[in-house]
Amino acid sequence: MTDPRGPEPVRPPPPGRPVEPATIEDLPQVGDGSGQVADARFEREEVQLALRNRGLPLEALRYPITPTGLHYLLIHFDIPAVTPDDWHLTVAGRVSSPLRLTVGDLQSLPAVTMPVTLECGGNGRALLPRAASQPWLVEAVSTAEWTGTPLRGLLEAAGLADELVELVFTGLDWGVQGGEVQAYQRSLTREEALRDEVLLAWAMNGEPLPPQHGFPLRLVVPGWYGMTSVKWLTEITSVAQPFTGYQMTESYRYARDTDDPGEPVTLIKPRALMIPPGIPDFAMRTRVVQAGRVPLRGRAWAGRAGIARVEISTDQGASWADAELEPPVGPLAWRGWRYDWDARPGRHTLSVRATTADGVAQLIDPPWNFQGMGNNVVQTVDVLVV
Amino acid sequence: MTDPRGPEPVRPPPPGRPVEPATIEDLPQVGDGSGQVADARFEREEVQLALRNRGLPLEALRYPITPTGLHYLLIHFDIPAVTPDDWHLTVAGRVSSPLRLTVGDLQSLPAVTMPVTLECGGNGRALLPRAASQPWLVEAVSTAEWTGTPLRGLLEAAGLADELVELVFTGLDWGVQGGEVQAYQRSLTREEALRDEVLLAWAMNGEPLPPQHGFPLRLVVPGWYGMTSVKWLTEITSVAQPFTGYQMTESYRYARDTDDPGEPVTLIKPRALMIPPGIPDFAMRTRVVQAGRVPLRGRAWAGRAGIARVEISTDQGASWADAELEPPVGPLAWRGWRYDWDARPGRHTLSVRATTADGVAQLIDPPWNFQGMGNNVVQTVDVLVV
Repeated sequence: MTDPRGPEPVRPPPPGRPVEPATIEDLPQVGDGSGQVADARFEREEVQLALRNRGLPLEALRYPITPTGLHYLLIHFDIPAVTPDDWHLTVAGRVSSPLRLTVGDLQSLPAVTMPVTLECGGNGRALLPRAASQPWLVEAVSTAEWTGTPLRGLLEAAGLADELVELVFTGLDWGVQGGEVQAYQRSLTREEALRDEVLLAWAMNGEPLPPQHGFPLRLVVPGWYGMTSVKWLTEITSVAQPFTGYQMTESYRYARDTDDPGEPVTLIKPRALMIPPGIPDFAMRTRVVQAGRVPLRGRAWAGRAGIARVEISTDQGASWADAELEPPVGPLAWRGWRYDWDARPGRHTLSVRATTADGVAQLIDPPWNFQGMGNNVVQTVDVLVV
Repeated sequence: MTDPRGPEPVRPPPPGRPVEPATIEDLPQVGDGSGQVADARFEREEVQLALRNRGLPLEALRYPITPTGLHYLLIHFDIPAVTPDDWHLTVAGRVSSPLRLTVGDLQSLPAVTMPVTLECGGNGRALLPRAASQPWLVEAVSTAEWTGTPLRGLLEAAGLADELVELVFTGLDWGVQGGEVQAYQRSLTREEALRDEVLLAWAMNGEPLPPQHGFPLRLVVPGWYGMTSVKWLTEITSVAQPFTGYQMTESYRYARDTDDPGEPVTLIKPRALMIPPGIPDFAMRTRVVQAGRVPLRGRAWAGRAGIARVEISTDQGASWADAELEPPVGPLAWRGWRYDWDARPGRHTLSVRATTADGVAQLIDPPWNFQGMGNNVVQTVDVLVV
């Protein structure tokens, strides 16, 4: 799957150590340099990110399990060139038995396969004044079947020390963000890391991980936004203090501005999406539908919470009607919904909203935050009925 | 691979027949409605297209054969829901023996496997004032190994009539473009259609076609820009006059404006691309490289023409040096190139340009055209050496 031919990666300095700060500060910034884009038009750099980091084409919501090549992608830095024979996973830090494992070692451990709905923490960002980052509208969600070994078993084999507070997961992807050279790193608390459903995954939809999804190994943390499911995983470190790396304390925060530490982005909020009905106009993606009975179909999900209700509006949110729910694709995956619409000629705006078993509903007008995180505003689909 | 569950596609009217023109004219237009975006910022609808139609992340130029999930995509309308058991290919029109074939029928014919570099006709569009369409920068190119049966054999079995002028290829994807409801359709002359390398492909990189690449069957026309390689192919029609469908006479033209018929977009022009060296800044993708010897690597291609030369500039085009060429990945696929750069601290702009065996070179300043077609301007990569 991965062909290692090609250039040697340039070896960057260790993470957290700035490279000649006066020089790194020379790096150009998107737009006016504020880190924000406030109006309805987009910068070239946002488009450049959108061309790398693909979303789920909405008609692909038809598949209960997203075909691999249609799964959304957020590649933080570059896809690293990994030579499987050189790769290993290290489990180190505050453990009694540090481990060093090959892919073969991992595949000899007990394996489970589980459908998981993953969503990017920045999904919905571009529907509001936003961070100069990946300009997601609503399409950063997909469901794959991941195969791997439960993280818990590996951590028990390593012997976690009593003073352990968090586990730090380090990927092989390197880059610069916020003026800091870094490998991509995220942490989980002991309690979260030891949950049954957290996997070290080497296969996706029955095949070895493709390069863009973390070959040869990635973390999969069901229920959490995707930034937690570290790709190209190479090291797990047990630490005695909360980890303060860039992707924990600076990025992935619900914050008002750069001075506000805010709150961390964690579990996936409820959302429902609709397969746009009929046929598209090429450029605008406005839908053209023939009058009559139109089957509306889609998916809804809410991280760990179950979806209890999906409602449809065909009159711009003035009134709502319940959709019929299908069984979830898995305990931590989306469920289908269906609603038949009697479409009359004219222009219509369709909306769909989800509510969890705890009664948490998607908002029509969700609160803004500086980084554009977790914006689960209800989807709208413009339709011309002829 | 394709799961047919999900909504029934709404059945649109036959192509070419406008649906209540007064109503279809109500469809909203991108931006100011001129069909053009003239400045450096982008419309939301362009971003929406970029999120559906992914490019090759440039680091994936490292793979001689692009992994399937990284291959660029241009899905003109929607990915159709195809039920393989219901699908068949019809060969009709001016033939002595009309054919109707299943996937199994096709797979019983002689098969060949061939690496082919495909590139979107609109690649480079967003580097100039542009059509309100998919906003490609430089990344709409990839190379896959396609497996299928030569079209020529099938056409000989059908018995082409003497008065045949063109073959029309019809896909299962429907939509509206230029106010016209249409299935995606393209044609080839008899001479082009009968070339040895034209395939009816059912596999990509050794697997059945994924939905987004045309499952269960697509045309692959090596050397031509990608619009010719019709996906979700369902019908081949032999006609006695040049085909005048929208995608031939209105779209994919080198034209000055909407009144200019212009010239058709046909074969892929020469281009070279570089794997951006070092590590990226997250938002801008500016590269950070350590001073010293930096291996620059990439690929070059030119449709049917061979690549004879690749040159590198590390001084914003003031001077050029020859890169070393690797053998082509196949007769109709890209070839690798390599050049070692002695990088000194500071800001640099790297460029790469290709020249064909016929002496046709990429231009620094290529001519503009209304639809943003075939803009093979040389790539530039901004690098900060520390």
